[in-house]
Amino acid sequence: MDRELLFSARARSMKRSVIRELLKLTSNPEIISFAGGLPAPETFPVAEVAMATNKVLWEESDKALQYGSTEGDMRLRQDLADLMKQDGTPADPSNILVTVASQQGLDFVGKIFLDPGDTCVVGLPTYLGALQAFRSYQGRPVGVPLDDHGMRPDMLADIIRRLESENRRPKFIYVIPDFQNPAGVTIPENRRREIIRIAREGGYLIIEDTPYRQLRYTGKHEPTFQSMAPDSVLSLYTFSKILMPGFRLGWAYGPDWIIDKMVMAKQGTDLCSPPFNQAIAHHVMASGALQKGLVKTIELYARRRELMLSCLDNHLLDVPGIKWTKPEGGLFLWLTLPEGMDSDDMFHAAIQEKVAYVPGSAFYPDEDDHRSMRLNFSYASEMQICEGVKRLSALIHKQG
Amino acid sequence: MDRELLFSARARSMKRSVIRELLKLTSNPEIISFAGGLPAPETFPVAEVAMATNKVLWEESDKALQYGSTEGDMRLRQDLADLMKQDGTPADPSNILVTVASQQGLDFVGKIFLDPGDTCVVGLPTYLGALQAFRSYQGRPVGVPLDDHGMRPDMLADIIRRLESENRRPKFIYVIPDFQNPAGVTIPENRRREIIRIAREGGYLIIEDTPYRQLRYTGKHEPTFQSMAPDSVLSLYTFSKILMPGFRLGWAYGPDWIIDKMVMAKQGTDLCSPPFNQAIAHHVMASGALQKGLVKTIELYARRRELMLSCLDNHLLDVPGIKWTKPEGGLFLWLTLPEGMDSDDMFHAAIQEKVAYVPGSAFYPDEDDHRSMRLNFSYASEMQICEGVKRLSALIHKQG
Repeated sequence: MDRELLFSARARSMKRSVIRELLKLTSNPEIISFAGGLPAPETFPVAEVAMATNKVLWEESDKALQYGSTEGDMRLRQDLADLMKQDGTPADPSNILVTVASQQGLDFVGKIFLDPGDTCVVGLPTYLGALQAFRSYQGRPVGVPLDDHGMRPDMLADIIRRLESENRRPKFIYVIPDFQNPAGVTIPENRRREIIRIAREGGYLIIEDTPYRQLRYTGKHEPTFQSMAPDSVLSLYTFSKILMPGFRLGWAYGPDWIIDKMVMAKQGTDLCSPPFNQAIAHHVMASGALQKGLVKTIELYARRRELMLSCLDNHLLDVPGIKWTKPEGGLFLWLTLPEGMDSDDMFHAAIQEKVAYVPGSAFYPDEDDHRSMRLNFSYASEMQICEGVKRLSALIHKQG
Repeated sequence: MDRELLFSARARSMKRSVIRELLKLTSNPEIISFAGGLPAPETFPVAEVAMATNKVLWEESDKALQYGSTEGDMRLRQDLADLMKQDGTPADPSNILVTVASQQGLDFVGKIFLDPGDTCVVGLPTYLGALQAFRSYQGRPVGVPLDDHGMRPDMLADIIRRLESENRRPKFIYVIPDFQNPAGVTIPENRRREIIRIAREGGYLIIEDTPYRQLRYTGKHEPTFQSMAPDSVLSLYTFSKILMPGFRLGWAYGPDWIIDKMVMAKQGTDLCSPPFNQAIAHHVMASGALQKGLVKTIELYARRRELMLSCLDNHLLDVPGIKWTKPEGGLFLWLTLPEGMDSDDMFHAAIQEKVAYVPGSAFYPDEDDHRSMRLNFSYASEMQICEGVKRLSALIHKQG
């Protein structure tokens, strides 16, 4: 049989994730890696999970080890609605779908909205996993540049006008408003309003992907897109960065007509998210361990962020044309090299020097930025952050 | 915005699962339900899971609560390869992809093989979740009738010839060879050979979905399609029926070139299956609890099957034209009503009488069988099986 012909068109165009392949290179323990997006294992609430698990196994195993509803465990959905309310977003638990982390939310967005050739608007740069998900349905992401305050509304309006004039109306506008992956920037309230205005004017849906929202270290709280325009926003959340990734749990929140379709998509995809994990997550949340843990996680990451920024200041402030973002939260900052330097080329030299990052090109639909890199500050220890920035800086000085 | 137009064509054609909607009707505890496909909770190895979970949390939480590889936990993949070998199927752990149960395997089959309009061959009747998964990629399932020995090779050859002549070559042949869902029938070895011969002649891939394989109560062991034709078979397995569904773990096994593409699909879908659940499943398997539990599960289900068959004999043997299959394993049998009776119509009367089944039409691509029903014998207690069959029989006698 002709193998290539056997595959669907979408499968023929699939590529392996650049980041996940890079991460294999960086698995050597001598390499200090700023490449992944891993939370620090010291933040995992092991004892609380152990207690919750015992409760689940000894008191409700008949349900927790059985099939569950596609929508998710109603107790957990109530907890999540409460969490959203504390954050200023009115939320009805019946509009929550529990997903296999937010990547599944992105997959469903592709599945229910994108026909082959359909366009959608994304940031430049944007989350690689979103590009993968949208492309796996043969969608065509079109990029809108970010600045230090996130997606630029003027450029968004321009690009939408252009797409409309070409009869390529985008299916949705994808934003990561809080401490964006990879750029680390946050959209301020007035700009959120502006983006919503543009979306409403054209009748566009906004996909708000906000995995790091609870991880703010400085600056002022911004309202969610969901709280500002519940009729036209689908929001994606995850436990991966606020509790742990190993449970693979997240949730989608949006209007009935979208959640309803996502539930149908989920029925054919995996029937339900693991009821065992959902029951444990519920008891962890009910015990207050999520909120207590978050206080410590924020303390730890704030310190690491501060340290990375000051190390960068120490070693690189004298390099002309270099710059980096100063994120108010999240896991990442974004460094732009001086003109003439190439972060893709430099990657292999960096591996030689035993320090790793993700080249910025990975975050562009057309891979056309070669001067930037994403640096993660949540995973490496304080010692490693200092040493890693030193190694990276030496390399930049050498290449400069 | 026009909501319907916003959705992709595949989403516009999505329907809620008939079974999952029916199951909501049957949630009244007074109803004796033969409708679901639920394993008996008394088979869940609660103590063994508790011990394995403690081990995972206290000894390897850094890994188990972190992101994991897309392919899956290598220890678990080794366990699964060993399980397959014990079953007579040579298996290399590197050709295993751990999935969010076998439904995700079916979703990936749709995703990587089916372009809109592509045909694939399925049994008549067949697993509803497979129809949903294939249709969510706008595939067109074409049915081949089953008899008491599963898919009929003569009809398969005919239908493939017809599809080829219409330039609609199917992308794959989907079979559930062991104790088929919903019909409960098993394909004997010589017929497996025949199906493989037809597939090889035309260069077709076989998807072997075998969730119940380990649950044989009588009759002789049949070799897997995988063991007979590893070059052209992709096999899907699940923990749902042999351990518990609440972990949402399964696995796909096949040639490199397919598994490789499935790994790419999984990267964009959910990054990885829950490492926490995988680590626990590994320790449960390593402790021998899976095999020990299976002995008891088989004992329990064999008894329930025997009981349901003898109750049917007692109450319905005198009804002219009625028949039912006598499955050698699995969870289901398939009952065909006498000519003139309608299992869809009868469903609501059955709910009134407080007994439930799944009408056979749910398992046909064109819903064009109205005389059959699927009866599950794994979930209801012995008392309930007797009482439920009595209620159902009274109804059939009344309608006859």
